[in-house]
Amino acid sequence: MYAEGVPFSAFGMATSIWTRHHILSLADFTPLEYDTVLQTASSFREVLSRRTKKVPTLQGQVVANLFFESSTRTRSSFELAAKRLSADTLNFTPGTSSLSKGETILDTAKTYLAMGTDMMVIRHREAGVPQAIANEMDRLGVRVGVLNAGDGQHEHPSQALLDLFTICTLLDPAYPRLDLLKDKKIAIVGDILHSRVARSNIWSLTASGAEVHLAGPPTLLPQLFANFVKEKKDKGFKIKNKSDESDSAFILSPLSFQRKLFLHWSLAPALKDADFVMTLRLQKERMTSHLLPSLREYHQQFGITRDRLKLCKPEVKVLHPGPVNRGVEISSDLMDDPQFSLISQQVTSGVAVRMALLYLMGSGKN
Amino acid sequence: MYAEGVPFSAFGMATSIWTRHHILSLADFTPLEYDTVLQTASSFREVLSRRTKKVPTLQGQVVANLFFESSTRTRSSFELAAKRLSADTLNFTPGTSSLSKGETILDTAKTYLAMGTDMMVIRHREAGVPQAIANEMDRLGVRVGVLNAGDGQHEHPSQALLDLFTICTLLDPAYPRLDLLKDKKIAIVGDILHSRVARSNIWSLTASGAEVHLAGPPTLLPQLFANFVKEKKDKGFKIKNKSDESDSAFILSPLSFQRKLFLHWSLAPALKDADFVMTLRLQKERMTSHLLPSLREYHQQFGITRDRLKLCKPEVKVLHPGPVNRGVEISSDLMDDPQFSLISQQVTSGVAVRMALLYLMGSGKN
Amino acid sequence: MYAEGVPFSAFGMATSIWTRHHILSLADFTPLEYDTVLQTASSFREVLSRRTKKVPTLQGQVVANLFFESSTRTRSSFELAAKRLSADTLNFTPGTSSLSKGETILDTAKTYLAMGTDMMVIRHREAGVPQAIANEMDRLGVRVGVLNAGDGQHEHPSQALLDLFTICTLLDPAYPRLDLLKDKKIAIVGDILHSRVARSNIWSLTASGAEVHLAGPPTLLPQLFANFVKEKKDKGFKIKNKSDESDSAFILSPLSFQRKLFLHWSLAPALKDADFVMTLRLQKERMTSHLLPSLREYHQQFGITRDRLKLCKPEVKVLHPGPVNRGVEISSDLMDDPQFSLISQQVTSGVAVRMALLYLMGSGKN
Repeated sequence: MYAEGVPFSAFGMATSIWTRHHILSLADFTPLEYDTVLQTASSFREVLSRRTKKVPTLQGQVVANLFFESSTRTRSSFELAAKRLSADTLNFTPGTSSLSKGETILDTAKTYLAMGTDMMVIRHREAGVPQAIANEMDRLGVRVGVLNAGDGQHEHPSQALLDLFTICTLLDPAYPRLDLLKDKKIAIVGDILHSRVARSNIWSLTASGAEVHLAGPPTLLPQLFANFVKEKKDKGFKIKNKSDESDSAFILSPLSFQRKLFLHWSLAPALKDADFVMTLRLQKERMTSHLLPSLREYHQQFGITRDRLKLCKPEVKVLHPGPVNRGVEISSDLMDDPQFSLISQQVTSGVAVRMALLYLMGSGKN
Repeated sequence: MYAEGVPFSAFGMATSIWTRHHILSLADFTPLEYDTVLQTASSFREVLSRRTKKVPTLQGQVVANLFFESSTRTRSSFELAAKRLSADTLNFTPGTSSLSKGETILDTAKTYLAMGTDMMVIRHREAGVPQAIANEMDRLGVRVGVLNAGDGQHEHPSQALLDLFTICTLLDPAYPRLDLLKDKKIAIVGDILHSRVARSNIWSLTASGAEVHLAGPPTLLPQLFANFVKEKKDKGFKIKNKSDESDSAFILSPLSFQRKLFLHWSLAPALKDADFVMTLRLQKERMTSHLLPSLREYHQQFGITRDRLKLCKPEVKVLHPGPVNRGVEISSDLMDDPQFSLISQQVTSGVAVRMALLYLMGSGKN
Repeated sequence: MYAEGVPFSAFGMATSIWTRHHILSLADFTPLEYDTVLQTASSFREVLSRRTKKVPTLQGQVVANLFFESSTRTRSSFELAAKRLSADTLNFTPGTSSLSKGETILDTAKTYLAMGTDMMVIRHREAGVPQAIANEMDRLGVRVGVLNAGDGQHEHPSQALLDLFTICTLLDPAYPRLDLLKDKKIAIVGDILHSRVARSNIWSLTASGAEVHLAGPPTLLPQLFANFVKEKKDKGFKIKNKSDESDSAFILSPLSFQRKLFLHWSLAPALKDADFVMTLRLQKERMTSHLLPSLREYHQQFGITRDRLKLCKPEVKVLHPGPVNRGVEISSDLMDDPQFSLISQQVTSGVAVRMALLYLMGSGKN
C-alpha cells in the first residue's frame, strides 16, 4: 500500500540529531540543521517519484493548517505533504472562523490543540503570530510543533528551505548539501523590504557561504539594509564594510562563517556573473501606497528577461516563489523556458521539503 | 496501523442497547442512553491518548457535514471525530452551495443521501431543520443517521453531552456516569433564552438529578421559564413551585426522576455553593437589538470572575462552550486558570463524545 | 479493509482498450468507449452497494479538483469518487486562490502538476479551459489526465455519461450498454442553447441510435439547431432534412451510425410517446437578460407535470441534472414520485460513473 523500500534507516541519523520542535525562523539555523533538512527532503523526493507516493510515518497524527491569511498554493502544498505522510489534516480558514466571533488567535490555536492536533502550520499577516503560538504551546508544556508558513513581512522558512533544496539538488542531485553554494553568487531582486521570503532566504543563503546580492527599488532598500546591519551588530556580529559601487557588508557571525551580503541601487551589478537569480513576488497592494512604481515601470527597471540574464553566468537559473505576475517580475517567455526557469521544480521541491519538516518536527515525539 | 487493543468488546453492551438512529434533541434521552454515551466516549477518550489516535470502525463509510450555518470549531471537531473512526468526510458549506441556485434544504440532504452518505451532521440557523431532514430520511426508508449540530435556538445535543462527559469524567475518570451529578448544584449563566446550548444542557443536567440554577439578564429569563414550565405541564409533567427568593420548579417527570430547575434574577443565588458554573457565549448580535446591555455592563452583572467564584464551593469548575469573548462572559485570567477552567477539557471531550455518537448511530446498521 | 472480491479482472478488458488520457468532450466518443464506461461504472456501482464502499485502486495518487466556478454537488461527487478509489484529493476554490493575485489559469494548473497531481478535474465558466489545460499537459509531455467537469456552455461529459448510465442501468441492470437505447425516443426540454449538459447529452444519446427531440423557448432554439447542423456539415457529416411539424435532421456520421436529432417549437411533439424526458436546469441569470420568460411563464410552457407526461409512453422516466428549481422545470410532486423520477438515481450513478472515469484515465499510467 505504501511506497516500497522507503529508506527509513537513512533518516535515522537525521532524526537523532534534530532537536527543534518549532520551525519559526531561519535566523539561528545551523549548517547541520540545513543539511539535515536537505537530506531528509532528498529521501522524500525519491518517494515522490514512485507510483505510490505515500508513507505511513504520521499515521494517526493530526496536522492543522491554520491559515489566518488565505493561500491556495502554500496550504495545498502543506496539505499534500501531510497526507503523503498519512497524517489527517484539518484546515482552518478565516472566512468560516470563530475569529469573527471575537475569539483570540491564541484561543483558536488552543482549541485545535485541545482537539488533539499534533502539529500546527500557521500563516498570519502579522509578524510574530507563529512565535507567539509556539511560546504558548511551550508554556503549556505540550509537545506540539509549530511551523511558520509565513508571518507578515517577517519570515517564510519553508519557502527559503525549498528554494535552497531546489538549488542544491540541481548542483548535486544525489547529495544536496549546504556547502555546494559556497562562493556562488545569488541575486535577490524585487521588493525586498516587504518580503518575508527574502528575509528567510537571506538567512539560509548567507549561511551557505554564498554571496547574496540584493537589488530593488531604491526607495525601499536602504532601510532594509540599515536594519539588517544594525540587527547584526546588536547581536554581537562584526561588520566589515567594503567600499565599491554598492553598499555591502561582510558579517562575521558567531557561527564562524562569513555572511556576505551586498546591496545594489540598480539591477546590473546584482546580476553580473550571478549563478542564481531569485525574483520576488510583487505585492500589488504596495503600489497603491505609492511605494512602488507602476507595473510597467517596475518591469522596465527590475523585470528579469532573457536579455538581462546575459549579464549572468551562462548556466544561470531563475527562481520565483510564485504565484508569478507574468511580464512583471519575469518576462513570460523566460518563465516557461526550462533552460533558465526553476519555478516548476520549486513547487515540486515544496512538497518534499514540507514532508521533511513535518517529519523532523514529529520525530522527537515518543 | 491503528491503536492497539481497542476494547471493542467493551462497546458490545453499549451498541446492543442503542436504538436511536438520529440524535436531534435530549428532551427524551433516558438515563441509560446518557450512560451509554458517557461510557462509549470514555473508551474513545482512551484511544485518543495513544500515539495513533485512529480506529477502523467506520472505514468505507461517509459522514457528510452539512453546515448551513458556518462554524469552524464544531465542524472541525466532527470532522476529526469522523476521520479518527476512519470514515470519509464531505463538507458542505453554504458559500459554495447550490442553495444560492434555488435548491431546497431537503433536496440538498437527499443529494448527499443519493451520493452514498451514511451519516449527516447538520447545523442550521433555523430550529427544526435537522428534525425535518431526519423525518425525510425515515419517510424514504433509509438507514441514514442525522445528528443535530445546532439548530437555531433549539438544541445542540453534542455540546451538552460533551459538557456532561467533561463533568462526569472529572468526578470519576474511570467510570463516568450520570448519577455522579445527583444533588450537585450547577449554575447556567447568561443569555439563556437564546441559547441552544442551554436548552440541551437543561435536559441533560436535570435528568441527572442535579439542581440546575439559571441566572441571566432579567429582560429575557421570565419568558424562558414560563415557556419551559408550560411545555412540561403540556406533556403531563407535574410542577411543584417552591417559594423562595427565586422562581423555581420541581418537575416530576414520567421517567420517575425529579427535574430540579431554579430561576434567579441575579447572579449571587445561582452561584452560591455551586459545584459547576456553565457560562454561555454572548451573541453580540443580540446587543444590537437592544435585548442585552453593553459588553461592559454585561460583564459587571453576569461576568464570572475569581471574586464571584468565592460564592461557590471551593472546588468549583467553570465551563464555556466556546468561542469565549475574553473579559465578557469570563475574566481573562480565570479562563486560563487550570484550577478552575474546564474549557480546554471540553474541547478534548468534544472529539471523544462525537466519535461515540457517530459510532452509536452507525452501530445499528448491518 | 476494502470491499471484498472486487472483480478487478472484469476491468481488464476495459482498461486494455482504453486509450484516452483526457475526457473533455463526447463529440468523438466511440460506441466502444461508451460501453467501456458503462460497464466499468456498473462494476463500481456494485462496490458501492456494499458496506465498505472503497477500493485501493488509486492509493497514493492525487486528484486535484480545480473548480474555478464553484459547485457543491459536482465537486462533492468527484471528491467522493476519488476517495472511494483511495486517492488523496486537493480542492482548489477561487475564493482563496492565487487568481486574485494575478496568476493565470494555466499557471495554476502547472502548480498543481508540479506538486504531483495525477489527475485534474476542471470546472470553469469559460468554454475551452479544460481543453487548454489538457493541451498544456500534453505539450509538457506529462501523463496527467484532465477531466472536464463543465466548461461554460460547451460540455459536461461526466453528467451526460451518468445520465446515460442511469437510463441504461434501468433498462438492463446486469449489463448496461449503449445499444439498449436504439430507437428509444428521448426528449430534452429547456434552455438548450445555454446548456453544457444538453450539448454533451446530444452527443451521447444520438450516438446510441436514440431519437433525440429538443424542445425549448423558441427565442433560443433555432440558433442552436442551425449551429449544430452547420457544425456537422463542416466536419463532413451528411445531413438529411425531414419535413414534418418540426425541424429535424438525420445525420449520417462517419462512425457509421445515424444521429437522429429533431427540433420542436413546442413541448407536445417532443413528449409524444417519449421513453425518457430530460429536463434542464433553468439558469435564473438568463431571465435577467430577457432571453427567457418569467419562472411562472416558463413552467406553464415547458414545465414537466404528471399531466403532460400522459403524452409520453406509460413507463416514461424523467431526469434532471440538479439542482432542481421545484415547480419550475418540474412540478414538485412529480420530482418526488419514484414511479417517474430518476433524479436520485442520477446522483448515485454520478459517483459510480466518476469512479469509472478516474479509474479509466488512470489505467493507462505505469
